[in-house]
Amino acid sequence: MKARVYVSMKPTVLDPQGQTICSALNHMGHKEIASVRQGKYFEIGVAEGTAPDAATRVLDEIARDVLSNPVIEDYRVEILD
Amino acid sequence: MKARVYVSMKPTVLDPQGQTICSALNHMGHKEIASVRQGKYFEIGVAEGTAPDAATRVLDEIARDVLSNPVIEDYRVEILD
Repeated sequence: MKARVYVSMKPTVLDPQGQTICSALNHMGHKEIASVRQGKYFEIGVAEGTAPDAATRVLDEIARDVLSNPVIEDYRVEILD
Repeated sequence: MKARVYVSMKPTVLDPQGQTICSALNHMGHKEIASVRQGKYFEIGVAEGTAPDAATRVLDEIARDVLSNPVIEDYRVEILD
């Protein structure tokens, strides 16, 4: 089983890295880019034989406790097949 | 218009950061995690009034030339609404 976890800054948190990329793109002539926010992305392989509901629970726990900082970041877990 | 760009290492490229996260998760008791690969994720806001096909072309160009290193990384562009 495969899963994807997306971690991004909460909308209220400043993202200077994203702003820098946005400003660089505008200077390179891509004036149509209005905003950029950078996040992290994890592709996780879960061992065969793990029950789907157990996997969902474990992945949610891992995303919350290990992969993201819930004070400033949001996460989203997507289970594939 | 919003878009998301996902950048991840090509499958043949080693990802020591992902391996470290995987091994840390296993040591923390999450034995069901078989593999982890880390990537980057960008949420991009495109200015109102940009034609969808022009936006798709520009985002593909940006993903290829700026946000990823095509020698070792793959990218995926997802257009929302």
